[in-house]
Amino acid sequence: MHILIIGAAGMVGRKLTQRLVADGGFNDQTLEALTLVDVFQPASPEGFTGKVNSLTADLSDAGTAEKLIATRPDVIYHLAAIVSGEAELDFEKGYRINLDGTRALFEAIRLAQKEDGYRPRVVFASSIAVVGAPLPFPIPDDFHTTPLTSYGTQKAMSELLLADYSRRGFFDGIGIRLPTICIRPGKPNAAASGFFSNILREPLVGQEAVLPVPEEIRHWHTSPRSAVGFMLHAASIDVNVVGPRRNLSMPGLSATVGEQIEALRRVAGEKAVRLIRREPDDMIIRMCEGWAPGFEARRARELGFTAEDSFDEIIRVHIEDELGGQL
Amino acid sequence: MHILIIGAAGMVGRKLTQRLVADGGFNDQTLEALTLVDVFQPASPEGFTGKVNSLTADLSDAGTAEKLIATRPDVIYHLAAIVSGEAELDFEKGYRINLDGTRALFEAIRLAQKEDGYRPRVVFASSIAVVGAPLPFPIPDDFHTTPLTSYGTQKAMSELLLADYSRRGFFDGIGIRLPTICIRPGKPNAAASGFFSNILREPLVGQEAVLPVPEEIRHWHTSPRSAVGFMLHAASIDVNVVGPRRNLSMPGLSATVGEQIEALRRVAGEKAVRLIRREPDDMIIRMCEGWAPGFEARRARELGFTAEDSFDEIIRVHIEDELGGQL
Repeated sequence: MHILIIGAAGMVGRKLTQRLVADGGFNDQTLEALTLVDVFQPASPEGFTGKVNSLTADLSDAGTAEKLIATRPDVIYHLAAIVSGEAELDFEKGYRINLDGTRALFEAIRLAQKEDGYRPRVVFASSIAVVGAPLPFPIPDDFHTTPLTSYGTQKAMSELLLADYSRRGFFDGIGIRLPTICIRPGKPNAAASGFFSNILREPLVGQEAVLPVPEEIRHWHTSPRSAVGFMLHAASIDVNVVGPRRNLSMPGLSATVGEQIEALRRVAGEKAVRLIRREPDDMIIRMCEGWAPGFEARRARELGFTAEDSFDEIIRVHIEDELGGQL
Repeated sequence: MHILIIGAAGMVGRKLTQRLVADGGFNDQTLEALTLVDVFQPASPEGFTGKVNSLTADLSDAGTAEKLIATRPDVIYHLAAIVSGEAELDFEKGYRINLDGTRALFEAIRLAQKEDGYRPRVVFASSIAVVGAPLPFPIPDDFHTTPLTSYGTQKAMSELLLADYSRRGFFDGIGIRLPTICIRPGKPNAAASGFFSNILREPLVGQEAVLPVPEEIRHWHTSPRSAVGFMLHAASIDVNVVGPRRNLSMPGLSATVGEQIEALRRVAGEKAVRLIRREPDDMIIRMCEGWAPGFEARRARELGFTAEDSFDEIIRVHIEDELGGQL
């Protein structure tokens, strides 16, 4: 089996690569070759004895998609995107990367099929940003996509393309609406939603973190480990069971910031909780109020996608995967 | 006021042109100029003393959108599209006309705004084909768009673009999800849904018509007069009241074929009904089962869009508008 990961240098791409290498394949198929692509050179995975091709490329550049498809990978992960804030600041770049890049990939596959019947599995990383406030709680699977960002618009348009190309048999696509990933490893970043991770990750290693919103804010989370689990499951399920509605809101954990903090207290004690400094930020509070509080995700659960049931578990996953199992 | 109609030679485009000329404008603004565009030369309206520019052009050709926008029309009606059947048969042409053509128009407006702050009203003819079976009845306003045709996919993608361009202030867009138009004037055509009109229009003038489906089939209808009414209302309402969700399922009449026939009996008598010949067609029956049975259309009604309440009324509108008021 040959797997192509576009956006392989990002956090999910790196973890997915590690997991694929560790598992050695899925559905009784052995992973023989990996093609890793990103705008920054992806690191080659350790401990992999198969063939690795690590490339620097931009999917929205003319000819890139065709080149990537030329080797006919069996499974294609499309995780590459300009993030929400950048797509909002740079309108043209957002559409070029997030919409035109995706369409170029899908078109290259369609044209390849004309040549030799090629029909790969395509797993596309979509986002809960495809929905926009006002939102019910929980958000049902059949809720309309009325994004309030250009990023969300581009993801929703790509979802529609994916479903149509799949319906017409050009590839077998699955779109994965990822919850906010928590606890995001690494350093605090500039994303407005970064605090959801910061207020847990930093106190767990004795560092201060800033909480800019009230504890009542409710949001929709999943661990990096679960996100990778979604990606693997999406590549291995029977698409005929999924039917024509190919874009799935993934399961996750709906929790308030207060519930996150209670979980931190249970796992790491009052000392950790005391490292959270409250500094209300009106702009972030206003943005938060438009974010998804949680999804029903009934179809995805029925199809076998699974995520954490508690924030204690999300914190323990972080301790196991990022802190060597120890506090 | 200068109004541009793209797709002006089609049935709705022609009726919209006539109505605009008859009304002489709206919202206390006088209609001074009309630009009529289609792939076939649109007829110049009778009785209009303002300036008319009638053009043959394809919106998806490079440079066409910029040329149309150069004169800075105040209101733009975008009604041009490849129909459902053709978009399904010719994948590339469907995306080129229905998606790329729409995007070219929106982009031309955005770039014009950069030059001089241009910000027109844009009314886009979308379709109930943006939803796909299985469907509830009635379909609520917040139901997801999971089209089962490439045409529906292209309309749903265009709706997302329209909402994003409107949210960012590039224009003031309203997307209009038109019900099936009944009674469609003219000759019977090859569209699979043509029988909904044929079984009324033909018997009203003493001609036979074929009914290929059972009387229990339920569908979603509006008259050509109401469709034009939607177009006018969409150009004149306050977009701030509409908010960011710019694509509206229009009101209409949900009726079974049996209810259509009962209305025909009431308006035109048993003699007309006897002209309907039943010839079941399995392919059309299967297609019908995936079509929308009816929408709640609560938001559109609250915003002042109106349609017929009974099929008797739809038939009377046809008699008034197409048969000179006489049976």
